[in-house]
Amino acid sequence: MYKVVLDVMGGDLAPLSTLKGAQLALQKFPDLHLCLVGKKSVLKDFEGLKRVSLYYTEEVVGMEESPKDVLKKKKDASIFKGLEILKSGEAQAFVSAGNSGAVVAGAIFILGRLEGVRRPAIATLIPSLKDPFVLIDAGANVDSKPFDLFQFGVMGSIFIEKIWKRKNPKIALLSIGEESGKGNILVKKAHQLFINSDLNYLGNIESKDIFRGEIDVVVCDGFIGNICLKLSEGLAEVILEMLKNEVKNSFLYLLGMRLAEGAIKNFKKKADWREHGGAPLLGVKGNVIIAHGRSDAIAIANAIKVAVNFIKFNLVEELEKAIIETLKVEEEP
Amino acid sequence: MYKVVLDVMGGDLAPLSTLKGAQLALQKFPDLHLCLVGKKSVLKDFEGLKRVSLYYTEEVVGMEESPKDVLKKKKDASIFKGLEILKSGEAQAFVSAGNSGAVVAGAIFILGRLEGVRRPAIATLIPSLKDPFVLIDAGANVDSKPFDLFQFGVMGSIFIEKIWKRKNPKIALLSIGEESGKGNILVKKAHQLFINSDLNYLGNIESKDIFRGEIDVVVCDGFIGNICLKLSEGLAEVILEMLKNEVKNSFLYLLGMRLAEGAIKNFKKKADWREHGGAPLLGVKGNVIIAHGRSDAIAIANAIKVAVNFIKFNLVEELEKAIIETLKVEEEP
Repeated sequence: MYKVVLDVMGGDLAPLSTLKGAQLALQKFPDLHLCLVGKKSVLKDFEGLKRVSLYYTEEVVGMEESPKDVLKKKKDASIFKGLEILKSGEAQAFVSAGNSGAVVAGAIFILGRLEGVRRPAIATLIPSLKDPFVLIDAGANVDSKPFDLFQFGVMGSIFIEKIWKRKNPKIALLSIGEESGKGNILVKKAHQLFINSDLNYLGNIESKDIFRGEIDVVVCDGFIGNICLKLSEGLAEVILEMLKNEVKNSFLYLLGMRLAEGAIKNFKKKADWREHGGAPLLGVKGNVIIAHGRSDAIAIANAIKVAVNFIKFNLVEELEKAIIETLKVEEEP
Repeated sequence: MYKVVLDVMGGDLAPLSTLKGAQLALQKFPDLHLCLVGKKSVLKDFEGLKRVSLYYTEEVVGMEESPKDVLKKKKDASIFKGLEILKSGEAQAFVSAGNSGAVVAGAIFILGRLEGVRRPAIATLIPSLKDPFVLIDAGANVDSKPFDLFQFGVMGSIFIEKIWKRKNPKIALLSIGEESGKGNILVKKAHQLFINSDLNYLGNIESKDIFRGEIDVVVCDGFIGNICLKLSEGLAEVILEMLKNEVKNSFLYLLGMRLAEGAIKNFKKKADWREHGGAPLLGVKGNVIIAHGRSDAIAIANAIKVAVNFIKFNLVEELEKAIIETLKVEEEP
């Protein structure tokens, strides 16, 4: 039995999305046991169900609250209570679509970092013309150091190899030119660390090329990763909006667009972050999956599926082994 | 008469694009005089023409060459020769679609920085759902300091006010959250400088919102700006490619897409960097316009038009005044 904690209160569409997502996941995965954390009134339909444990708390972290503040003031909030259940060993993975800053801060504070990990990082899957690729760090750390980027590459590589079954993943550093001399100080120093490692490191990649799908793991600082992630989301929406505005100008266009609508729907599905089931926080002592704040029931169920795979493939152990290896690589001064 | 130097050798499509662009510009603007710099064989059709001066050089900077190397080894290359003409006073503006790193390095070395400017920056116009906005710095400086970002904001603001006639431009800092506490060290410190200034500063903007067109000047470090710029270009291409792949799967879709094609063409035109005529390098002692490497004749002619406007509205003088004002703002330690 795989035991996964779900923060029922987290997410823009919670608790409806999380409750429905929990039901979906229980139907789909017969070897799943869910530990649901949330308000008593919200959880009443799950009372007495098989393969479900309920944990009550009346405290909730808002989506816009400062992680530092809530860690002090709301110790009993569903996110932190859920992480405590994971830490106690009653469950093997944790899923939340709540305040991602609070999940990161809580996971580091409650679970702790894996031995040797300087900065845990968020690994996000992004659709491309071929298979999705991992962007790491997608926002857990701003102001990373070169050795942090190197560890992000190692962790992202393990994640895509073990969970998504890609052998010998291709890693690249996000920069402003493909040539090895191009980039800021951070990227230039990280480049040296990768070059000296045994990883399948292909050098720099420019942002315009990441969606081509030639690279499995794109490594960057969390400030830049988060900006890239949100830029892609925003631009995709704006492009579809601009196309819609264009077709309004002519009946013929409108007709054509109606016919093409099915294609656009298919395309949207392919580019949909919901299909990929959330982003893991790699480098903490436990399986922590951060679902998108806008997650609906399907996205929550997919995040739970990813959490099950983390348990199945012993991801934390695999990461720990790999991270200890990185400590042999000496950082340039 | 407005005198503009054009580097005829620079650009992926040069010299065909630059020669045609020069012709176009001469037709369109009767008060334009062009100083064309390039190989003698390339310039022969312009011999003896009115409103044209020819400057010969056989040396050319390749698109992939290192700016530092060429500054030493190819002092007579068309980019540097063109900048010398500008410096001598024979012309009042310079346009090149060549190696942008070499243009930046050459402009700083040959023309020098305006008094008080720490780092000249590239200002790029980007299309949005409303009017285009300025992204500054788009790639001249990696590893910027807080005060650099502040000066980028000042210069970007002058540019969009004087050249694009927008009163009291709205400025925002690119960050990973709208709240003033969010961002990396650089952004947090720059935020303080903007807050303490008289600029129309609206705080942080998230990357997903920049295309909404609510902000006139989006300020960021050049590493991040360049990554955003290229990400947008790459993603727009990939989205249209994905849509095309989708519609291949059905005759009905294909029919619909054919009908909608006109709309997509219109959309592409709106999102086309060629329409905006290149990006100025702000903060050097002279009007320097960097056209896109892929510029065709229309893009070159538009860049020349922007150069003329720089002359017309005394942009260098305006920038100098504004920059001297910035020196009164003290940087936080």
